[in-house]
Amino acid sequence: MDTDRLEPGLYPPGRLDRAAAAARDAGLAALLLTPGPDLRYLTGYDAHQLERLTCLAVPAAPGRDAKPFLVVPRLELPAAQASPAGALGLDIIAWDETEDPYALVAARLGVRAGRVGLSDQMWALMVLALRDALPGVHQDLASAALRELRIRKTAAEVAALREAGEAIDRVHARVPGWLRAGRTERQVAADIADAIIEEGHARVDFTIVGSGPNAASPHHEVSDRALREGDAVVVDIGGTMPSGYCSDCTRTYVIGTPRPEFAAYYRVLQKAQQAACSAVRPGVTAEAVDAAAREPIAAAGYGEYFVHRTGHGIGLEVHEDPYIVAGNAEPLAPGMAFSIEPGIYPGPHGARIEDIVVCTEQGCERLNNAGRELVCVDIR
Amino acid sequence: MDTDRLEPGLYPPGRLDRAAAAARDAGLAALLLTPGPDLRYLTGYDAHQLERLTCLAVPAAPGRDAKPFLVVPRLELPAAQASPAGALGLDIIAWDETEDPYALVAARLGVRAGRVGLSDQMWALMVLALRDALPGVHQDLASAALRELRIRKTAAEVAALREAGEAIDRVHARVPGWLRAGRTERQVAADIADAIIEEGHARVDFTIVGSGPNAASPHHEVSDRALREGDAVVVDIGGTMPSGYCSDCTRTYVIGTPRPEFAAYYRVLQKAQQAACSAVRPGVTAEAVDAAAREPIAAAGYGEYFVHRTGHGIGLEVHEDPYIVAGNAEPLAPGMAFSIEPGIYPGPHGARIEDIVVCTEQGCERLNNAGRELVCVDIR
Repeated sequence: MDTDRLEPGLYPPGRLDRAAAAARDAGLAALLLTPGPDLRYLTGYDAHQLERLTCLAVPAAPGRDAKPFLVVPRLELPAAQASPAGALGLDIIAWDETEDPYALVAARLGVRAGRVGLSDQMWALMVLALRDALPGVHQDLASAALRELRIRKTAAEVAALREAGEAIDRVHARVPGWLRAGRTERQVAADIADAIIEEGHARVDFTIVGSGPNAASPHHEVSDRALREGDAVVVDIGGTMPSGYCSDCTRTYVIGTPRPEFAAYYRVLQKAQQAACSAVRPGVTAEAVDAAAREPIAAAGYGEYFVHRTGHGIGLEVHEDPYIVAGNAEPLAPGMAFSIEPGIYPGPHGARIEDIVVCTEQGCERLNNAGRELVCVDIR
Repeated sequence: MDTDRLEPGLYPPGRLDRAAAAARDAGLAALLLTPGPDLRYLTGYDAHQLERLTCLAVPAAPGRDAKPFLVVPRLELPAAQASPAGALGLDIIAWDETEDPYALVAARLGVRAGRVGLSDQMWALMVLALRDALPGVHQDLASAALRELRIRKTAAEVAALREAGEAIDRVHARVPGWLRAGRTERQVAADIADAIIEEGHARVDFTIVGSGPNAASPHHEVSDRALREGDAVVVDIGGTMPSGYCSDCTRTYVIGTPRPEFAAYYRVLQKAQQAACSAVRPGVTAEAVDAAAREPIAAAGYGEYFVHRTGHGIGLEVHEDPYIVAGNAEPLAPGMAFSIEPGIYPGPHGARIEDIVVCTEQGCERLNNAGRELVCVDIR
């Protein structure tokens, strides 16, 4: 809980009121949020998800009886009060080890019918206990109300994502120095993990190093395979900054000289990634951006080897709305931030290029600016 | 996913059958498990919790129609097949980006009434989608069936916890070298995090360094406060080993000479921690162990300053059953592993001593053996 490092601009006053209004608009009587990105978004409280209940209740009804309250285990009370949540005028209510915190939430909330919205990542343990404590109430997801707020980043949030992008770009700038024939993927990943912290992240989220045949598996992570001359190496890495905002950037490297067929489809991939970025502007749908990435790849005959969606939103979570995928007709709007990461995996090798971008009034700003040309590293 | 480092003994054959039988005994028609400790316990598959559904279904009915199956996103298929789950004879079913994986689970499961058990940490996103996909079915927690299996560790699991305990003991042996007046809690925590990895963990889970007044807050984590002469420093640290099993150990150090009142209650705390360990044997209740820790502290007049439970179970999770707390009348049994961590926090300082122990046929084996005498480090 790096509460002392939070930027106040990330938690502007009034956000709880806007969440209550959004809950009303979504037909929800209240939001019930356990630790995770929704709670952090609304209060700045970076609480741990534990088996002991911590729960922010945001009643949707306006007025004095509908003040949000935060229920926390007694021993988390100092941390909750010291967090930005302590400055929001919330009632913070501590429960003791032998109390039933679910009954406490239900009694204080006073909702006996209608619908409540739960944070998407609330544990089943809490979902079912709240179901039983609020027997006449139907449970829905809080994202019905919160996604419209969280999906459009404020200027302070975009600045936090830009800072994260610059940090991971600095890591990628150092990657070629760690790629040598004979070193294992795991050794390279350990160097990268250190660098993710050194370059300013608070936490390492993932260090995917897929070499040779592993580069052909889009979600390969890391193994004891040693790099060999001629390997393509997909390096997909990210972490969480002290602000809570995430980085995520992929580059594909080659050890020595690329195989001709690899070099050919890598050029197609560069074109596809550029085409998708160029397609981003307000009003264009998410699926149109996916199609823009897919078109040049299909035209070059590699369509069947682009086996995943083009991208995912990013913010306090590394995967969040909007998803850049066929079937998502949501129009983009300024402030939406997401990855553009087409890949081609024909085997026995593969490649992916990924940048985080933000939709602006004018079009698209890339938050990753590490070079996208094929980097062929020294073979020794 | 360190699948190549898993010890096969941790995932003995027949565990899925025992889980199905336990589900029957608990009156459940099936278990539905998303990524997390339950899935790892039953299959060895260390999958990520993502917004895309990965779900192991374990039908409770015996026989041919009740074979467990694992539903995974298409791009996780290679990882699932390469994991220990790939060798269990499960059907592994991949779903494509535009399919509805919940409908797929419901259709294949064929359960239309009764109760199913969900993994305790399943996200609300999935809980509610499964609720809607299985409309006549009541949702309960899978822990009703799985806790009896998971709470009693096998010899291989105890060995994995012992290995974790030895690793974190080696970290504590190095801690005095990093505690110097003028260094911040955050600097010390960074040294500890590096050492947690160096000593064999796959992941750092927590590095609590609470100095001076922060030592009086049981769940303080870390801050930019600089250590001062005379400070007590509570160091509560742990990580996850490549096996998936966790470490967790607390020692309290003093910078220079302890205040007399601190030294007095630290001796009480040592006695209380020993008394609780001595109380552990099969048949004794969890709450009796809690009472054994509390008694000497209360007798010495510090009862009101021991503000948390005495301990928590540990295994694939750092907090799991059994909880060593007033009100838990569960009798201990061989193989149960848990922390014993009394604390005294009178302010403006405090102390805690924590070991992981396992209940044996004979009594209690401590899995942490770093010294419990007060360590007073050099002030420079």
